[in-house]
Amino acid sequence: MQKSRVEAFSDGVLAIIITIMVLELKVPHEVEMSALKPIAPVFLSYLLSFVYVGIYWNNHHHMFHSTRHVSGGILWANLHLLFWLSLFPFTTGWMGENHLAPTPTAIYGFVLLMAAIAYFGLQHAIIRQQGPGSILATAIGSDWKGKLSPVLYCIAIPLAFVSPWISSGLYVLVALIWFIPDRRIERELEKGEP
Amino acid sequence: MQKSRVEAFSDGVLAIIITIMVLELKVPHEVEMSALKPIAPVFLSYLLSFVYVGIYWNNHHHMFHSTRHVSGGILWANLHLLFWLSLFPFTTGWMGENHLAPTPTAIYGFVLLMAAIAYFGLQHAIIRQQGPGSILATAIGSDWKGKLSPVLYCIAIPLAFVSPWISSGLYVLVALIWFIPDRRIERELEKGEP
Amino acid sequence: MQKSRVEAFSDGVLAIIITIMVLELKVPHEVEMSALKPIAPVFLSYLLSFVYVGIYWNNHHHMFHSTRHVSGGILWANLHLLFWLSLFPFTTGWMGENHLAPTPTAIYGFVLLMAAIAYFGLQHAIIRQQGPGSILATAIGSDWKGKLSPVLYCIAIPLAFVSPWISSGLYVLVALIWFIPDRRIERELEKGEP
Amino acid sequence: MQKSRVEAFSDGVLAIIITIMVLELKVPHEVEMSALKPIAPVFLSYLLSFVYVGIYWNNHHHMFHSTRHVSGGILWANLHLLFWLSLFPFTTGWMGENHLAPTPTAIYGFVLLMAAIAYFGLQHAIIRQQGPGSILATAIGSDWKGKLSPVLYCIAIPLAFVSPWISSGLYVLVALIWFIPDRRIERELEKGEP
Repeated sequence: MQKSRVEAFSDGVLAIIITIMVLELKVPHEVEMSALKPIAPVFLSYLLSFVYVGIYWNNHHHMFHSTRHVSGGILWANLHLLFWLSLFPFTTGWMGENHLAPTPTAIYGFVLLMAAIAYFGLQHAIIRQQGPGSILATAIGSDWKGKLSPVLYCIAIPLAFVSPWISSGLYVLVALIWFIPDRRIERELEKGEP
Repeated sequence: MQKSRVEAFSDGVLAIIITIMVLELKVPHEVEMSALKPIAPVFLSYLLSFVYVGIYWNNHHHMFHSTRHVSGGILWANLHLLFWLSLFPFTTGWMGENHLAPTPTAIYGFVLLMAAIAYFGLQHAIIRQQGPGSILATAIGSDWKGKLSPVLYCIAIPLAFVSPWISSGLYVLVALIWFIPDRRIERELEKGEP
Repeated sequence: MQKSRVEAFSDGVLAIIITIMVLELKVPHEVEMSALKPIAPVFLSYLLSFVYVGIYWNNHHHMFHSTRHVSGGILWANLHLLFWLSLFPFTTGWMGENHLAPTPTAIYGFVLLMAAIAYFGLQHAIIRQQGPGSILATAIGSDWKGKLSPVLYCIAIPLAFVSPWISSGLYVLVALIWFIPDRRIERELEKGEP
Repeated sequence: MQKSRVEAFSDGVLAIIITIMVLELKVPHEVEMSALKPIAPVFLSYLLSFVYVGIYWNNHHHMFHSTRHVSGGILWANLHLLFWLSLFPFTTGWMGENHLAPTPTAIYGFVLLMAAIAYFGLQHAIIRQQGPGSILATAIGSDWKGKLSPVLYCIAIPLAFVSPWISSGLYVLVALIWFIPDRRIERELEKGEP
């Protein structure tokens, strides 16, 4: 029962984050098709961030599905993740409005990195509570996606000062890697409920 | 159980979309009744979009009611729908603030069309998972509403450059067609639970 | 089960309405205590609207508690209520920022009136579905509060052009009348579950 | 069942408060790293308020977990708490944008104080309803945290006019005191469900 409220609160926060990002897409004052051109990068950043929040929501969903009890530590690890995700509208807007200028692109990656670390912390807090034989631990296995992503972010952040396009290409690449929801947990769970 | 979180998240996103659209209704600085006149088209666009989101919510509700399990594919088909719906505040504001100028009216219709296609995709993903004898497939039958709407949008979009009033009339027409919630599913479900 | 989603969606919309109203409370650029003076009427309008949304939420809660099934008609009656409530941030901001100027004060009352009528419609839709011996019908009895409120609004709206203070006094009065949550339904329900 | 809607509504409001606070973090127009410097105090205020809302959410969660029925009095005590919490985005923005100027820092503390008092009132309303042998009363025991916090706020508020840094240091101190979620209730509940 406790779990359901953590899920509901997280759903609420994620739903709001995903939706207020669109507020950075300012309604233009002109009415020509050309008025959409300057907001195209804002739109593309929005799309990328939307996919990222969608990925986090999907994985959050799977992760909590394998959880029964929620400790105080998990609550704060979850809030820590939500904190970094709540900065997405800011970094998305900054990067998009400045057409991928180096610093905003690097900061965008930095917040992605911090969210990935917070996600890792949350995953760990859940596994620690589940104890040995944790469903989640078995499900994520080597967790190569979870380990590769921060590495790619760490490469992309300094590269933003060389070419923001390569950096954002790497952000897109990480999104694509995760796009396929974490079927590992789904599979483990199915094994467990025959 | 999984299903309930998808519903909760979708409810959250739809609730926020329907509510932040009203933020485009900027509080006027004057205090005369005449101050409401320039925002009348914004108000009418808001009303139309509110009805559209209401329709999507109602049908989403019915569609998921007939669903038991939610696969990764359904999760992403659902996020795809939410993405296009999340652009409603932008297109509503752009069309409303410019008193139905041609391009914004066409773009408004384009986003309606993309949402309709995404809805169609979500419906398909659910039917595919339910397999043969799907409740949803039986319920929607020929799905004439779902097939007619995109056709009407495709007519309305180019017409916006001839007469935006005809286009928006067509958008209102589609809303009226759907206004009556999808009783087909309701009926099928009642048959199934005697 | 259907009911729970209508409640969740309504909770979401009401939670957002009650919270985005505070966005009209613009952060002042000055740092003196006197900077709060010009926003005092905005604050008071916010307080009044917060109490109104709180009242609607409480009564909505009680009303749906007495409901088992939700028909298409109830869904739309509910959306109709949410539509008028969604205009509260606009009317609250307009009235507050203009220190209770006549027209905004009248429009504030008009939206209150429309919400009251929509609430009445929703109540009716639920009673009609519950059929004879409806718990809700018994619970609300003569419904003097529901009948008195629109009368007071109808008096307050034209009076705004004479004295906006009397009008807003009447709005406060209606809020006070409703402040005590609808114990009638609570009592009826308790009788029914001995 | 009633309880779940109060929780859902509160979750919604808290999720929105925690998320719209980030809107005060205005996207800068410059693209240099130095553009982040002027918004650093806004960011730190946001972080502090985020932790506060997180604490309130955690404790709210624990408090309602020990509750079975929700009376009209509890509903309003809860709305009273949400009202003061809804002012956090305003006071956070005012304090942060003015780099901890005395008046905004004092007002920030005042709203924290009012929220603490409202929380105290909600706690009391629940204990009163649970009657003698209340789980919540046993769980909170001497409630030293709940009693110390308002005292620290009362010291911090006037001190803001001497040194806003000491005041905000005290706000951080209170946050740290509460950071560890209220394990007392958790412990009592575990005792009760052996």
